Amino acid sequence: MAETNNLCCLLYGPGKARFENREIPRIDDPHDVLVRVSYVGVCGSDAHFWTHGGVMRMVSEEEPLVMGHEASGIVHTVGPAVTSVVPGDRVAIEPGFSCRRCKQCKKGKYNLCADMKFAADPPNNHGTLARVFRTPEDFVYKLPDSVSLEEGVLVEPLSVAVHGARLAGLCPGQIVLVQGSGTIGLLAAVTARAFGAKEVFISDINQVKLDFAKDFVGCKTFMPNLNSTPEVEAARMKKEMGFEEGADVVLECTGVESSLQTGIYASGPGGVVVQIGLGKPNLTLPVLNMCEKETVFKTAWRYAPGDYEVALSLLSSGKISAKPLISTIVPFTKAPEAWEMTKNGHGIKNLIRGVQDD
Amino acid sequence: MAETNNLCCLLYGPGKARFENREIPRIDDPHDVLVRVSYVGVCGSDAHFWTHGGVMRMVSEEEPLVMGHEASGIVHTVGPAVTSVVPGDRVAIEPGFSCRRCKQCKKGKYNLCADMKFAADPPNNHGTLARVFRTPEDFVYKLPDSVSLEEGVLVEPLSVAVHGARLAGLCPGQIVLVQGSGTIGLLAAVTARAFGAKEVFISDINQVKLDFAKDFVGCKTFMPNLNSTPEVEAARMKKEMGFEEGADVVLECTGVESSLQTGIYASGPGGVVVQIGLGKPNLTLPVLNMCEKETVFKTAWRYAPGDYEVALSLLSSGKISAKPLISTIVPFTKAPEAWEMTKNGHGIKNLIRGVQDD
Amino acid sequence: MAETNNLCCLLYGPGKARFENREIPRIDDPHDVLVRVSYVGVCGSDAHFWTHGGVMRMVSEEEPLVMGHEASGIVHTVGPAVTSVVPGDRVAIEPGFSCRRCKQCKKGKYNLCADMKFAADPPNNHGTLARVFRTPEDFVYKLPDSVSLEEGVLVEPLSVAVHGARLAGLCPGQIVLVQGSGTIGLLAAVTARAFGAKEVFISDINQVKLDFAKDFVGCKTFMPNLNSTPEVEAARMKKEMGFEEGADVVLECTGVESSLQTGIYASGPGGVVVQIGLGKPNLTLPVLNMCEKETVFKTAWRYAPGDYEVALSLLSSGKISAKPLISTIVPFTKAPEAWEMTKNGHGIKNLIRGVQDD
Amino acid sequence: MAETNNLCCLLYGPGKARFENREIPRIDDPHDVLVRVSYVGVCGSDAHFWTHGGVMRMVSEEEPLVMGHEASGIVHTVGPAVTSVVPGDRVAIEPGFSCRRCKQCKKGKYNLCADMKFAADPPNNHGTLARVFRTPEDFVYKLPDSVSLEEGVLVEPLSVAVHGARLAGLCPGQIVLVQGSGTIGLLAAVTARAFGAKEVFISDINQVKLDFAKDFVGCKTFMPNLNSTPEVEAARMKKEMGFEEGADVVLECTGVESSLQTGIYASGPGGVVVQIGLGKPNLTLPVLNMCEKETVFKTAWRYAPGDYEVALSLLSSGKISAKPLISTIVPFTKAPEAWEMTKNGHGIKNLIRGVQDD
Repeated sequence: MAETNNLCCLLYGPGKARFENREIPRIDDPHDVLVRVSYVGVCGSDAHFWTHGGVMRMVSEEEPLVMGHEASGIVHTVGPAVTSVVPGDRVAIEPGFSCRRCKQCKKGKYNLCADMKFAADPPNNHGTLARVFRTPEDFVYKLPDSVSLEEGVLVEPLSVAVHGARLAGLCPGQIVLVQGSGTIGLLAAVTARAFGAKEVFISDINQVKLDFAKDFVGCKTFMPNLNSTPEVEAARMKKEMGFEEGADVVLECTGVESSLQTGIYASGPGGVVVQIGLGKPNLTLPVLNMCEKETVFKTAWRYAPGDYEVALSLLSSGKISAKPLISTIVPFTKAPEAWEMTKNGHGIKNLIRGVQDD
Repeated sequence: MAETNNLCCLLYGPGKARFENREIPRIDDPHDVLVRVSYVGVCGSDAHFWTHGGVMRMVSEEEPLVMGHEASGIVHTVGPAVTSVVPGDRVAIEPGFSCRRCKQCKKGKYNLCADMKFAADPPNNHGTLARVFRTPEDFVYKLPDSVSLEEGVLVEPLSVAVHGARLAGLCPGQIVLVQGSGTIGLLAAVTARAFGAKEVFISDINQVKLDFAKDFVGCKTFMPNLNSTPEVEAARMKKEMGFEEGADVVLECTGVESSLQTGIYASGPGGVVVQIGLGKPNLTLPVLNMCEKETVFKTAWRYAPGDYEVALSLLSSGKISAKPLISTIVPFTKAPEAWEMTKNGHGIKNLIRGVQDD
Repeated sequence: MAETNNLCCLLYGPGKARFENREIPRIDDPHDVLVRVSYVGVCGSDAHFWTHGGVMRMVSEEEPLVMGHEASGIVHTVGPAVTSVVPGDRVAIEPGFSCRRCKQCKKGKYNLCADMKFAADPPNNHGTLARVFRTPEDFVYKLPDSVSLEEGVLVEPLSVAVHGARLAGLCPGQIVLVQGSGTIGLLAAVTARAFGAKEVFISDINQVKLDFAKDFVGCKTFMPNLNSTPEVEAARMKKEMGFEEGADVVLECTGVESSLQTGIYASGPGGVVVQIGLGKPNLTLPVLNMCEKETVFKTAWRYAPGDYEVALSLLSSGKISAKPLISTIVPFTKAPEAWEMTKNGHGIKNLIRGVQDD
Repeated sequence: MAETNNLCCLLYGPGKARFENREIPRIDDPHDVLVRVSYVGVCGSDAHFWTHGGVMRMVSEEEPLVMGHEASGIVHTVGPAVTSVVPGDRVAIEPGFSCRRCKQCKKGKYNLCADMKFAADPPNNHGTLARVFRTPEDFVYKLPDSVSLEEGVLVEPLSVAVHGARLAGLCPGQIVLVQGSGTIGLLAAVTARAFGAKEVFISDINQVKLDFAKDFVGCKTFMPNLNSTPEVEAARMKKEMGFEEGADVVLECTGVESSLQTGIYASGPGGVVVQIGLGKPNLTLPVLNMCEKETVFKTAWRYAPGDYEVALSLLSSGKISAKPLISTIVPFTKAPEAWEMTKNGHGIKNLIRGVQDD
């Protein structure tokens, strides 16, 4: 690879994308790996960047950002200390690089590292939507033969679901309710099943999504009546779905207040509710109801050590098949179209193919 | 004891107390114990009963209720199967009797038992404000010689604090923030210290209470500015108190929304916030802030197996002295005065002496 | 049922069985249930009773014992307080009744209850090998429609496996080694798979058993060379099976010292080894090797609250099919033949049919 | 400091010490810190090196080793990226540097890192017995004003005790038995107390050590009769010390088989036994006794993330005073005398003063 042909797709603000050749990253650290990107997934946050120019922190003309954080690829070059992969290996990329030195990193919670370098995080952390992306070797994971590069992109959102399930302490015999049937909700539901849940239920306000969920997850679904209250709808859900004792685990994947409230009311004594979806800064919870049943409310942030390995093991063993979630694949130069589609709710997981000519 | 001289103090509705002789309870089960009540503590909930006629469920002329749930006493009679106490033993009473058969009881969470018979819970579960109270033997605990009958009353609120600390997984080296310096807050703070906390801080809006806390707990105190916001006050607290990395554990003992919010903002990455105080049914939480740091929000309900034993061990070893919390002791026949005092904020823990003539 | 036709099979010492009509048990407690026994499984301990007259405690002419502790049946009569089952319900029986009052029971570890009444435990706790067996209602579990009465017998040994897996904290992504492929080893292996293990391996010294395991579990198997050492064989196993980093969880189901040692050497850093099989009183462990990798060695005793429910959920959902383990079913009056077969290693799980005429 | 006057004390084999000037280490990594060593503690393993030339791995004429791993000092030079300490800071040194990249490091168990560089570990990892020692900044800990440099040396063994207590899940209300009253045993006992243990007992076969323990820990002590058996002595201990229900936690600090066995027999149902002391490779355990009470046997290896911080918080808050353990301080050039003293059992913790002229 010549040093200056790293074609990247950058965002310069809401609706302003540009393709540029930037420098190919160098092996700075002996543990560095250069990955030729094969596919990049589009996440709801990308669509939000496309529309609003960012999530919390904004990109701008002055500080444009290479997009993308869900990616698979093929190892191109490895640093001299690298032992776990060799050029040609097919890999999934974990797109956040921790500092390795702070208290959080050292105690095994690198997702809480204050110095985390996360892909496509303004202003300085460029993303994976490039011909070549650099990572430390311990943040790439060899794909088993049975997992395609396309499916490899889904290791990232699957790790989000796995993280939520592990935070919940989800274990065999439990009744699990998933609130929301978008990509994360669907993956959370099949993860719950793979973790041994006795029963999994999924709730959403969109019948098309519920129909997909019913097939993909193979579970009972519920549509709340938005003219009713969370407490009433939770009671109806428990009765109609047949878990009147309440759910042991609720995986909240929408970030919407009424959905969270319904999830809490639908949980049973000692139940665990995990907030996986991100929404408005402040949400109102039925705290007194929670106290009476000692509800545990956990909040999830990305994924922690081990989550990628577990996600990969679920895919490679066939316990989970993520392929049905892939809706469309667009060429690299049409990345903005993929964002637009996702923004408009077309498809579940849209992929962008990596740069193809070399 | 004659069969009909069980003098009790009943509530017949807001502000309506009556003293009556009821029947002395009988040994129904071979494991039953009759306790001659020595002291009954007044809790905020008692003051609320006195003012409003109940908490959630109301008492009425038709269904009056014997009050009282914090109590110590002397064993009077024991059933034929009782082996752990003998008449004359000084005991603390755990005032909630679980069904022993449901899933919650069997897995060690009897505080979540749906059939819990808790003292002074309308309409049917009469309380301890009587000459004699009946309990199963495994819900009375012998007081060590070093713990007086007066202090024995405080095993109940101390168990609430211990339960919160255990739910939090509070352990040595941690920074602990206690929100609220009423009886439970004060006991939570000394419990945190006894559990090995590196530093304990206490926050309240009442300077007199803070001054007491400073002496009793021996810790730094903080008074939030109510004209500011929880986020700003939490930042100021962390800076002024010297824990800018945030608290590892927050024990919320007020049930007030702004206090809970301040506690959440003052917690650090991976922190645990335990809701011990009960307040309004719905509270708004800064959920996005919680997600970014993976805050765990736990809710506490009374006490679980082992909490009474731990509370007693902290008192008997001298790690905690609860005596300074006892403000006033009134005779049995002046129970309503003790409720009135507590309602008006006079004293920290007011006691009612048991019936004295026999 | 007449009051005196409770046909039972008793042991009077090694090799001395007798069939007797005893009194039908009465409903003593309002929560009691009388179960018409359908099938009783034969466990290795039964074969040991048959040969030696007991395990730890002996039966004798003076204190003969009704045998049997793995059982399914049909509810015949229920006490007045029973709400969870009705006559006619098909049930699995959990054969140990805890005291509900001791510290262990109250904290959720009833398997450690010192007053546990376990079926077929000399001298006083008679077993299930009777026409009718009495249990408290919370120790019978309705069989889902998809689980036969024959398979219902296997809920007991499956609960032993589930208990071991839960003790181990077995979770998705882990590498699990099962030592021993008898009934418990086989069930432990399929349980590990149902709990989401990434890979399961099974080791035994009997090729016939390994062949069965290969089919039943669908896993790689290993036969150690008994002329070698546990350390060498563990190294060979890790290499040949492809888990050179070591197992995350080892479920030791033999009770044999060399098997335990091999399991420990085959475990990886931070691994958990659970002793499920019972063997000689004293076993030698490579403690220094354990220290260097901080091995956790847990010991399992029967099953704890929730294990039966999890076992049933695994059977009813089809995650586990236990039917292939059932080898032979003999009539009630030929119970000693079933013990003899098990003693001689014929069959995996032999069943005794309940009394058929009424 | 000149580049070549790093006076070091090296071992060249059993009984062969030499003092040499070696090169002052350089700041290689921007996070490196050079510490001027103030005190180095002598550990039993140093005495073993002195006598046998090593522990597991040997030093030799060809591969001599700088000794020492318990150390305090004063920061001399810091790399350009260092932010947590400045020259002049008084620090305790954590003497093992993890790779930060392997699975164990990333999940918070760096003590199990296969690439750990531990001080004074043959052949390549030189120790702290030098004028200047280099560490990454996150492995030095500022000493609070209340902790002297002498006491700072004891943070290392105290962290061993803290690690054991945290592995045990030691918490308030528990009964704790410490086996062995050497430095680690003594520190384990005061740590158990600081963690809130209800009662702490200590057992040893040396009356002088027990007398010291009685004063230092303030606890009951027990001397087993070596002509008896562990089972009998454990029963006698429980009776005489007054914990007939058995210990909740046993901290085994000797590595001696009979001591471990006694500890296991003295533990109660569900008890946790932690092997902290290192001894012979193979030890025989009463596994059947363990199974009946579901004993958990954990093995400890050095210390894990957070242990140093907890140890320091216990010292700085005055919950633990380690000073009474310091017996003798010898000059740098008499290091071998300190090893000889420790080998001969003279003193509890002997220190070597750092190089004093500059």
